[in-house]
Amino acid sequence: MRTIGVATCGGDAPGMNAAIRAITRIACTKNLKVLGFENGWNGLITNAFRHLLPHSVMGILHTGGTILRTSRSLEFRTEEGIKKAAETLANNNVDGLVVIGGNGSFNGALALSKETDTKIIGIPATIDNDVFGTNETIGFDTAVDTAVVAVDKIRDTMVSFKRVFVIEVMGRERGFIAATVGLAVGAEIVLVPEIQFDKNQVFKSIKEKRAKGKRSGIIVAAEGIGDCQKLAQEIEENTGAETRRSVLGYIQRGGNPSARSRLLASLFANKAIELLLNEQGNRVVGLQDGTITSIDLETSCKTEKPLELDLVNLASILTR
Amino acid sequence: MRTIGVATCGGDAPGMNAAIRAITRIACTKNLKVLGFENGWNGLITNAFRHLLPHSVMGILHTGGTILRTSRSLEFRTEEGIKKAAETLANNNVDGLVVIGGNGSFNGALALSKETDTKIIGIPATIDNDVFGTNETIGFDTAVDTAVVAVDKIRDTMVSFKRVFVIEVMGRERGFIAATVGLAVGAEIVLVPEIQFDKNQVFKSIKEKRAKGKRSGIIVAAEGIGDCQKLAQEIEENTGAETRRSVLGYIQRGGNPSARSRLLASLFANKAIELLLNEQGNRVVGLQDGTITSIDLETSCKTEKPLELDLVNLASILTR
Amino acid sequence: MRTIGVATCGGDAPGMNAAIRAITRIACTKNLKVLGFENGWNGLITNAFRHLLPHSVMGILHTGGTILRTSRSLEFRTEEGIKKAAETLANNNVDGLVVIGGNGSFNGALALSKETDTKIIGIPATIDNDVFGTNETIGFDTAVDTAVVAVDKIRDTMVSFKRVFVIEVMGRERGFIAATVGLAVGAEIVLVPEIQFDKNQVFKSIKEKRAKGKRSGIIVAAEGIGDCQKLAQEIEENTGAETRRSVLGYIQRGGNPSARSRLLASLFANKAIELLLNEQGNRVVGLQDGTITSIDLETSCKTEKPLELDLVNLASILTR
Amino acid sequence: MRTIGVATCGGDAPGMNAAIRAITRIACTKNLKVLGFENGWNGLITNAFRHLLPHSVMGILHTGGTILRTSRSLEFRTEEGIKKAAETLANNNVDGLVVIGGNGSFNGALALSKETDTKIIGIPATIDNDVFGTNETIGFDTAVDTAVVAVDKIRDTMVSFKRVFVIEVMGRERGFIAATVGLAVGAEIVLVPEIQFDKNQVFKSIKEKRAKGKRSGIIVAAEGIGDCQKLAQEIEENTGAETRRSVLGYIQRGGNPSARSRLLASLFANKAIELLLNEQGNRVVGLQDGTITSIDLETSCKTEKPLELDLVNLASILTR
Repeated sequence: MRTIGVATCGGDAPGMNAAIRAITRIACTKNLKVLGFENGWNGLITNAFRHLLPHSVMGILHTGGTILRTSRSLEFRTEEGIKKAAETLANNNVDGLVVIGGNGSFNGALALSKETDTKIIGIPATIDNDVFGTNETIGFDTAVDTAVVAVDKIRDTMVSFKRVFVIEVMGRERGFIAATVGLAVGAEIVLVPEIQFDKNQVFKSIKEKRAKGKRSGIIVAAEGIGDCQKLAQEIEENTGAETRRSVLGYIQRGGNPSARSRLLASLFANKAIELLLNEQGNRVVGLQDGTITSIDLETSCKTEKPLELDLVNLASILTR
Repeated sequence: MRTIGVATCGGDAPGMNAAIRAITRIACTKNLKVLGFENGWNGLITNAFRHLLPHSVMGILHTGGTILRTSRSLEFRTEEGIKKAAETLANNNVDGLVVIGGNGSFNGALALSKETDTKIIGIPATIDNDVFGTNETIGFDTAVDTAVVAVDKIRDTMVSFKRVFVIEVMGRERGFIAATVGLAVGAEIVLVPEIQFDKNQVFKSIKEKRAKGKRSGIIVAAEGIGDCQKLAQEIEENTGAETRRSVLGYIQRGGNPSARSRLLASLFANKAIELLLNEQGNRVVGLQDGTITSIDLETSCKTEKPLELDLVNLASILTR
Repeated sequence: MRTIGVATCGGDAPGMNAAIRAITRIACTKNLKVLGFENGWNGLITNAFRHLLPHSVMGILHTGGTILRTSRSLEFRTEEGIKKAAETLANNNVDGLVVIGGNGSFNGALALSKETDTKIIGIPATIDNDVFGTNETIGFDTAVDTAVVAVDKIRDTMVSFKRVFVIEVMGRERGFIAATVGLAVGAEIVLVPEIQFDKNQVFKSIKEKRAKGKRSGIIVAAEGIGDCQKLAQEIEENTGAETRRSVLGYIQRGGNPSARSRLLASLFANKAIELLLNEQGNRVVGLQDGTITSIDLETSCKTEKPLELDLVNLASILTR
Repeated sequence: MRTIGVATCGGDAPGMNAAIRAITRIACTKNLKVLGFENGWNGLITNAFRHLLPHSVMGILHTGGTILRTSRSLEFRTEEGIKKAAETLANNNVDGLVVIGGNGSFNGALALSKETDTKIIGIPATIDNDVFGTNETIGFDTAVDTAVVAVDKIRDTMVSFKRVFVIEVMGRERGFIAATVGLAVGAEIVLVPEIQFDKNQVFKSIKEKRAKGKRSGIIVAAEGIGDCQKLAQEIEENTGAETRRSVLGYIQRGGNPSARSRLLASLFANKAIELLLNEQGNRVVGLQDGTITSIDLETSCKTEKPLELDLVNLASILTR
């Protein structure tokens, strides 16, 4: 192992820069050469990279986004795109490649691994936390905290007006952010794609609380559950409660990473370099049961990470 | 002047609690009795109030929302509603009434003033900053800072992806929040309802910047300018720039007030009590040219506050 | 199990209120009566408590401090004090007692357990993270994040002036906060009481970095390592680097709890009630290897929790 | 006016970068050449500068510190140092020089102005707000907000323990930060260097509040009033109140500038360029009575800015 590459792919997540920094500095300590590919898979396809040295990553630990930039690459989904990326790796004698991203990026990495001898290691970084093989991804903790701070602000208006708020959080088709935020803000109801819900039950629950005198309330909904604007209207029509929707949106992706996201980034990077130095590839690093470990790349790609449904139940108990 | 009432009306704004606290404590120092009417005008219509003492307002200075709650009262827009409110004031021997709110609330106060002998003083508190007679309203500074922090977060994703973002801020039909936020975040383009804009100029400006290599950019748009989702789509179609919309929404109304919003609340409250002790009514307090002063209630209601167009021009110069 | 008590003891930590809320609401769901003892052990000594119902804990989830207040009780360290507390438990038929606090509080709980039949469960809540039997205590994550945000601010001045900063964080005689903050902020040097350090090595390291052109730097020091003011002076004298000390102080104890601290509080409370319903006592709940579990109270009190020295080493590698 | 220089001198303040950006971009729009001198006066003495173009100041608007760095220059206090700076200006044909800093920097600018034909304009940027000729300096609003957020956190511990806290804020020999923070946090007592205070009065006030049942309290003290640690001890000895001191320290200088500090920076920069284009020098720009204006440099240096004592009185009334 003499030369490694690193790229950030897919959606950006707070802590990606901390991971790039840690990969670079640890690798340099081990006398590895580090190439930073730009704009995600596009940089591998077009051979766009910069040589990363310890000072190249100065002053980025605490910043959001990614200095290597990212993109959603359509070309990389084609056989031709993947071949070009494999050629780039071969032409630059890249022995190991660290892919920082989420599920989609790891599927790309899996496809690429079949066309190259370069050892590929995935570092899970996505606010969605939907990567199998790790309890937590880089950026998840930050996104949750950002959402919680936002909901705490909305609570002021909610209480002042005795309103019901349907607050839509990110997470695509999964409910990890919604379940954690819901528990942390004391949401009356948490709606996640993993649990089918009956709108009539939602109306009933709100009406019961109003009958007991609790006139304001928070519903935290994952974006994957469907049309929240319509849901808010139906709640207002069916319960009489003044109901508003709020979409937290892109603020959840950005901002300075939390201490925990930075820490995870450093520990994952450390593990990734350790694996590469042991000539191991096709692995995804992760935090499992409190330990930094790794699992097979294909297993991570092909397995759906289960949502802890207990969290959703506990949120419900805690607002009674 | 022996008994005063206080109510928060219309939309909530950070710093309303600071104003309630200051009114109560200053009034008590002057041996006035303070009645806190609940749920805005509704409390005046239904005679719902609590007696406020210095300790009633302990621990609220730094909180968002309003402990007296607020509402948008339809009944108060009727002659009958206003008469009921006037009766409530008479029945409780309320000599002075402090109305904490925005334009709509002051129009209500003006209507009420014609049916009562109670001296009415308006304290401008709205995130929209659209009250004539004051350079700044309570809550405006906080809302602007909240929006700026949110845009700073979105900037991370924007730069990582080289995207254009259309960010919709509050302000109803006025552009005060948009103009100030736009300048503070370095927006490439600021769109406010007060200035007609030509979509083709927007497209042209974005294309010119892209031609020069600046591929990401922020457009801050007041909610009053129309459909931002459509605008984002048209920008993408006409410029080729990947464009996203983000609506900051209700987070702008909440949260702990900034030091400045708290200070303004205390100073406005101090002025309001001073006016009442001088038996003056039908006034709106304000900050004019650095001085705490007051103007006639009717003048405030009937005059449109001009937007400083210089700010919008300066924002444009600063992104060249 | 029909009646339980709950008290917050020792130093306050963000998330204590989330724990009180969860204990109360979960217990009420199980038809338990909940007594909230006030001012820590003092409330048990003086029989000062309030009956807690679900609505008593409304609106506290996101707040710092503790609504039950706390104190450092000298009387409770006497045999007499402990006997009084045992009598209070007996007189009120308290079957189970939940003690929310840190090491010192659990030592108190252990002493009390020898004088009472009430089942006692400890919930670890301290910013210091120094409780054996749990990887993380309630409040630790929040304190670390607060410290990290503060250091990020100081970094601006440090870089502008090319200064070295010795930043003293909390943690009493332990280095958990310092090690985690140091890694998260990219500290050049992390000083913890668990690792002896040689001042000359510190000077040498700073001089080497200056020779390479890196003129500013952060040293994160646990308060337990000794006099940081003197250290800063000695660094300046021995290296020529302009050096300043900053003590972060009490801000680390307060503020709204992070999502993670709130979550941990809810999960720990859930486990505590489960143990009590199973008639188990003398246990401390905790997070071990990703699982909510519990250990024997006496073992927790008598065992020193080890610091992960790897974190300190990794911090050092990452700044090379 | 063809070439201008810009330098940040003295202590750093949030918003300095916003000012550098605005100076550069506005000047370039007017076809001026901009030289950014580095490390404050030292850059003028040693002829260290970089040519600033619009893209040189990209991405800095929202950051704390100063990209031009700063220093406290001893050499500039000598006649020789000032002559060297004047030579640097002459050698580079600098027609106008913008000095961004506080009182000390403007005294330096005044001395320099006597040795050069270059027109000098001061932009007031210091967290201390102690520049005569402007109601507010760049950075003051940010520092106050940072201090207020910190005190809000300390309040949690204070209330939980029923303690008195003496909180020392920055401001050197002046009380602007202390007075504003004190009012914004609801401090029981505000101590500023401008008002002599009697310790016995402080003890008496605290004892009276305790007699009325208010056992916790905040004293906000300017660093210029003397030894706060000793004061805290004396309060504890004389009143029986558990009392702690907290020094907020360097966090007040750093962090992202508030919207208001950024806005002020842009407006001040705009005025500075306008003055230079009119061939005016020896001026300090400022905000006076709501208007951006300027005053004579020597007048600004030689006049002490008065503290609004009303704020301190109002703070006292508001905690009764």
